[in-house]
Amino acid sequence: MRRVAVVGTGHTRFMFNSPKTEVEMLAEASMDAINASHLKPKDIRAIFTGNVLGDFSEGQGMVQSYLANDIGCFNIPASKFEGACASATMAIRDAYMWVASGFYDIVLVGGTEKATAMGTPLATRTFAMFGDSRYEYPAGFTFPAFFAMEAHLYSKKYNVPLERLKEQMALVSVQSHHYGMKNPHAQFHKEITVDKVLSGFMVTSPLQLLDCCPFSDGAAAVVLASEDVAKRLTDKPVYIAGVGQASSGKMSSQYKYLPRLRARELAVKQAYEMAGLGPEDIDVCELHDCFSIASIIAVEGLGFAEFGKGGELWEKGETKTGGKIPVNISGGLKAKGHPIGATGASQLHEITRQLRGELVDEGRQVAGAKVGLVDTLGGDGVIVNLILKTD
Amino acid sequence: MRRVAVVGTGHTRFMFNSPKTEVEMLAEASMDAINASHLKPKDIRAIFTGNVLGDFSEGQGMVQSYLANDIGCFNIPASKFEGACASATMAIRDAYMWVASGFYDIVLVGGTEKATAMGTPLATRTFAMFGDSRYEYPAGFTFPAFFAMEAHLYSKKYNVPLERLKEQMALVSVQSHHYGMKNPHAQFHKEITVDKVLSGFMVTSPLQLLDCCPFSDGAAAVVLASEDVAKRLTDKPVYIAGVGQASSGKMSSQYKYLPRLRARELAVKQAYEMAGLGPEDIDVCELHDCFSIASIIAVEGLGFAEFGKGGELWEKGETKTGGKIPVNISGGLKAKGHPIGATGASQLHEITRQLRGELVDEGRQVAGAKVGLVDTLGGDGVIVNLILKTD
Repeated sequence: MRRVAVVGTGHTRFMFNSPKTEVEMLAEASMDAINASHLKPKDIRAIFTGNVLGDFSEGQGMVQSYLANDIGCFNIPASKFEGACASATMAIRDAYMWVASGFYDIVLVGGTEKATAMGTPLATRTFAMFGDSRYEYPAGFTFPAFFAMEAHLYSKKYNVPLERLKEQMALVSVQSHHYGMKNPHAQFHKEITVDKVLSGFMVTSPLQLLDCCPFSDGAAAVVLASEDVAKRLTDKPVYIAGVGQASSGKMSSQYKYLPRLRARELAVKQAYEMAGLGPEDIDVCELHDCFSIASIIAVEGLGFAEFGKGGELWEKGETKTGGKIPVNISGGLKAKGHPIGATGASQLHEITRQLRGELVDEGRQVAGAKVGLVDTLGGDGVIVNLILKTD
Repeated sequence: MRRVAVVGTGHTRFMFNSPKTEVEMLAEASMDAINASHLKPKDIRAIFTGNVLGDFSEGQGMVQSYLANDIGCFNIPASKFEGACASATMAIRDAYMWVASGFYDIVLVGGTEKATAMGTPLATRTFAMFGDSRYEYPAGFTFPAFFAMEAHLYSKKYNVPLERLKEQMALVSVQSHHYGMKNPHAQFHKEITVDKVLSGFMVTSPLQLLDCCPFSDGAAAVVLASEDVAKRLTDKPVYIAGVGQASSGKMSSQYKYLPRLRARELAVKQAYEMAGLGPEDIDVCELHDCFSIASIIAVEGLGFAEFGKGGELWEKGETKTGGKIPVNISGGLKAKGHPIGATGASQLHEITRQLRGELVDEGRQVAGAKVGLVDTLGGDGVIVNLILKTD
């Protein structure tokens, strides 16, 4: 297997109600990634995309072919992946293999979504199709309901009183909004406080409005290349050192393990082993904070905290830029936004910029970061992890 | 790269209005494929699936994770591909790479669809989302309309009078129904005549009802393994000797090339070159006959006939079991049925059985077949080709 590197990246502003189509947004991010890589569209050998609700939101399936056509990558192989919120990360892991195996030298990977076109209440209902729709969704398990249950299970299992857990959860959202202020691509540029979170609209107990990420419109893309090609194109290659993926399935199959998500623990183990690294080596992490409780569960599954102690990282400020494990310095899904099928590519864009030291001017650089982790959860059905590093 | 072989396959009956869910149908086909491979679910290292309209037809996205869960392939990586009708073939080509590269030894690939749940008229409208939905579908270009235009362009470009072309097209459907009679998995078991085709309901001139394939419910699955593993599991490994994929995009980008489909010509060239074979080496072919005219265009693009002469193969009986290039001896999409996201896996199932000589009892074996070709068209946006061979 060859080493594979990220060369260039592109990222649209994440927003409510973009005037552009999904293909247009992804074309914008893709051309930015191709230009940043000092390449032309004709240099791209294959395209891998993530997109989930294109048919529902704007009546357009198979976005990959129209993207290829519109950016001038005529007739090249273009595939689309659907793994709910993890669609783009799934595409990245797959694209990695096509380059690592020696089949292609240069590929484009991206994700795009117009998740706000349906309006958030309808989007929540629509998106419940990516849970088990035969037994569990009809019983009321939309994703907010699932993560609310996770919070209750967590509180009980680890003996963290709900009031304290809710404060920890609030701290997650407050930090995300703080860093989102500094990210020009973020959907929300607005500081919030713990009081504001705790006094917010109750979505589904104990999750209040500011415990929940928004739906967003947006796209992100990256160019991947083999090591030798990457070194000719950039003096700052960021290598994909490890990848991992695992699936879950019905909640009813997971009930003995919850609130822990076994798929994450298995996926990140694959990535750590492939990279020859462990949680102690990670300098910066973008993880899947679809709900504030999801962040707390994630830092534990990824090995950054003992089970039941995840929230203490935020209490102690360890998740900030100067902390032990800086988390979601982009603003995360909560403040940067969550265009479902684009989120994984956005996370990789962010980690690449951190490892290149490009975020000093934005006031959110993790000093000396050399190893980063991407964590994306698709529904409660799939996890994909990526480990990135510089030499 | 290692050689990759098909070990076992599974296939549900294709039908109108299946009482099973997409996951249930795919679970049935998958367990048949796993059992036929003398394996257990725990031996499968990753799952690759094709599915297109699951969210629209039954409100279930991310079928891959629920499949993995339901058949006991707990927590393994499971990915879903969407490339319209070519989704499963796209998944197969991708799965091929994960095994060829040495990453996995044994994987499961399958496709599933409940395309009849919406009723055919609504399905046609819904499925138009997999063409360009911003400019071309609103102008009336559903897929029947596109292929009707292809027939007119073909007639004019190659100077084949429309009346003769319609008779050639009718022969395509008549042959498909003839072989469909002999395929126990086929949706239609009914002989038809040229007169019956030509006197049928006009869908969109010149396509009449029996020029059009149905929508169907069904699933198919295959187990792929590395050569050394495959040889331990079966004495009839069927190797994937070549793969190819190319994308198209808007019709307005293709207009100078139509009625030829450039994507097919590029994709099959990749597959031929990789296999070191040409059209003259193919003993049996399953190609994408979504409409009868599509078959005529396909045999030309694949190199089996000169441009403008494709229909003559059917006139001369060269596409039958004893002919020069037996085509769609399964009954094809026309008579076997077309469960969109399952079709490519069904085609691979069929070619595998032909190359293993397993169709003698069904009265549709191509004697001595050693090399086969799979051709799947997704909308008019993507083509995937696979070349299979025995030693």
